[in-house]
Amino acid sequence: MHRCQPPDAVVWPQNVEQVSQLAALCYSQGMPIIPFGTGTGLEGGVCAVQGGVCFNLTHMDRILALNTEDFSVVVEPGVTRKALNTHLRDSGLWFPVDPGADASLCGMAATGASGTNAVRYGTIRDNVLNLEVVLPGGQLLHTAGQGRHYRKSAAGYNLTGLFVGSEGTLGLITAATLRLHPAPETTVAATCAFPSVQAAVDSTVHILQAAVPVARIEFLDEVMMDACNRHSKLDCRVAPTLFLEFHGSEQALGEQVQRTEEITQSNGAFHFSWAKEAEERSQLWAARHNAWYAALALRPGCKGYATDVCVPISRLPEILVQAKEDLKASGLTGTIVGHVGDGNFHCILLVDPEDTEELRRVEAFAQQLGRRALALHGTCTGEHGIGLGKRQLLQEEVGAVGIETMRQLKATLDPRGLMNPGKVL
Amino acid sequence: MHRCQPPDAVVWPQNVEQVSQLAALCYSQGMPIIPFGTGTGLEGGVCAVQGGVCFNLTHMDRILALNTEDFSVVVEPGVTRKALNTHLRDSGLWFPVDPGADASLCGMAATGASGTNAVRYGTIRDNVLNLEVVLPGGQLLHTAGQGRHYRKSAAGYNLTGLFVGSEGTLGLITAATLRLHPAPETTVAATCAFPSVQAAVDSTVHILQAAVPVARIEFLDEVMMDACNRHSKLDCRVAPTLFLEFHGSEQALGEQVQRTEEITQSNGAFHFSWAKEAEERSQLWAARHNAWYAALALRPGCKGYATDVCVPISRLPEILVQAKEDLKASGLTGTIVGHVGDGNFHCILLVDPEDTEELRRVEAFAQQLGRRALALHGTCTGEHGIGLGKRQLLQEEVGAVGIETMRQLKATLDPRGLMNPGKVL
Repeated sequence: MHRCQPPDAVVWPQNVEQVSQLAALCYSQGMPIIPFGTGTGLEGGVCAVQGGVCFNLTHMDRILALNTEDFSVVVEPGVTRKALNTHLRDSGLWFPVDPGADASLCGMAATGASGTNAVRYGTIRDNVLNLEVVLPGGQLLHTAGQGRHYRKSAAGYNLTGLFVGSEGTLGLITAATLRLHPAPETTVAATCAFPSVQAAVDSTVHILQAAVPVARIEFLDEVMMDACNRHSKLDCRVAPTLFLEFHGSEQALGEQVQRTEEITQSNGAFHFSWAKEAEERSQLWAARHNAWYAALALRPGCKGYATDVCVPISRLPEILVQAKEDLKASGLTGTIVGHVGDGNFHCILLVDPEDTEELRRVEAFAQQLGRRALALHGTCTGEHGIGLGKRQLLQEEVGAVGIETMRQLKATLDPRGLMNPGKVL
Repeated sequence: MHRCQPPDAVVWPQNVEQVSQLAALCYSQGMPIIPFGTGTGLEGGVCAVQGGVCFNLTHMDRILALNTEDFSVVVEPGVTRKALNTHLRDSGLWFPVDPGADASLCGMAATGASGTNAVRYGTIRDNVLNLEVVLPGGQLLHTAGQGRHYRKSAAGYNLTGLFVGSEGTLGLITAATLRLHPAPETTVAATCAFPSVQAAVDSTVHILQAAVPVARIEFLDEVMMDACNRHSKLDCRVAPTLFLEFHGSEQALGEQVQRTEEITQSNGAFHFSWAKEAEERSQLWAARHNAWYAALALRPGCKGYATDVCVPISRLPEILVQAKEDLKASGLTGTIVGHVGDGNFHCILLVDPEDTEELRRVEAFAQQLGRRALALHGTCTGEHGIGLGKRQLLQEEVGAVGIETMRQLKATLDPRGLMNPGKVL
């Protein structure tokens, strides 16, 4: 939804040496550098707001090393999460971080992505072991040392963690070493409808407190559920709903299912529906993954604008009620869907791109939602990033000293301010 | 073992305002600032190598906030992990990161500690949500924004991650917001002896590949096992041994136990011994936790010198064999014990502190072990930190660009170089 501004030029480097040489050239000439993976980010991270050179890294698409015994893999920026999981198919391993879009893994590292599996497997932040980064001047940095793929370290400053989520403003990620996980032995899914948002969130907290290792636990408000029913030909009750998925052995799943059902029933769930067969399960999660398109179908011809926030789980009912009231007051059409186990949710707003007044209301709603999250000790973005649109919210979130510290780090690593300028800070 | 150098003065601030005022005063006067928690670090992190003022933070020992529904707690620097877990006793939650010593939690954050539970619950790095930090000049930074305790965020640079593991060289941690976990419903422990290191490590890899959610998986070499038998009155076979612990429901544990036993047997385990009763289990883990004293008892009158490294798990057999050969060649007495699920292990070396030549051999062994880990794509320290003794190894580990990047970050946040000088870089 961010008005895209094209760069002055696009380059398609074939290898890290070319990235390094091109970056050095751009930097010496004072040209902005904009890294590009799949362009699936939602906060305008690839807009060339000051012109410059777009580095399209999709031609670098090799899987450089797979260490199954060490549960690690090294990928170039053109490798997407689906491509990686296809490659891993017979290895007994998988990469679980799943933001929905088939994003490039290095791009996911750059934006700090996460998605539906984070409640069990962590976000991309928890699953990056090492990054190869071309610094703005062309120097090559291995954030954890060249070729290293250990599981933990206490050696020096956490450079890997600094570059994850830096949205291309500190350097170009040219390879990522990722942590892999054992592929789930068995998977079952379920849906569960509740009389209220509070009941759905209470169930989530109780499931987590009971240490049920739920793999996905997604919340859909009744508007989203209705849209998914229509778009994906489901027959779910139109009510606040949880979509759940469990991974484990047959035996372990039996117990997880039983405990979860008990917890949701004690919280007044209307109906619990298990999808054990692969086909039924696929249909359910296809519906969840197609929530975006289901929302779009609510107002044909309109575009979607997705915004996300994250709050402490206990504050979810409060903010969800507020968000729905704000939606109503603003006269906007929107659905709510989210990763309730993390306290993270999205509003998908439908907007007529020709209607500047409506666009203004959408942007005002997103800002207000961000401020509501901040007031509840949350963050203005759980996984989409700051990009262009949330820079003011970031200032409010981390305060003057926090912003000043971030600005100092940026000035240290990118003294000329040419790496993806206009983003984050 | 690092020759301790006392500071010129010690202050005991009572609150964050005093820390801030004292830091500003020291900084303006050019006095080094050395943060002190419990002093249980192993790499000389609290030595005042350039004199200055030691900030003993143990009087700030309040638990400031506990949010059970959000699985989070805020602690001051004087709160140790045992004190926190005592406080949590009736909450159904616990804080699992356990480096052995009853360290201060903020100190654990400063050094990037981990320990026996990291294979399941992550290191301290994975369990810090926010830090309150007094910057060298006295300014107060909340790394994730004041009062925030969300589970994930994509908002700006990861300042929390930068301060975790910075060993007091970037600022003073005056409060930490930590992530809590559900207390285990049931716990069982086991020991298992193997004919070789390879068989023990292979079992570990297979257990992880089978997605058995093992809570602890510790390796003891035969020297360590022998020492523990004597010191803790155990009757275990003197062989390479795994100590295991599982957390879960009764039913889940039954399956975990069975799978693990099958895997170890298929790798030629000699003997599998389950400790299901609390008393038996306590005895076992008390023995593991007393490994340090058991090792010391091997050479009465000597002191212990512990060094740690971490390698990709598949390289563990190789480096363990090398380490044992190096020990033999050097004529030193030492035991090996470690967190095999992370590829992390310790050598505990016995040394006569009056024997400078022996001390020299111990230091040479530790450097050699670090280099062996680096050659196998590992890190020179998995959890003890760089401190004084591993600065050269850090340079070799991250390379010239990595070190230069770390130096730039240090110079940005501590331009006068007064925060815990002489450490890390």
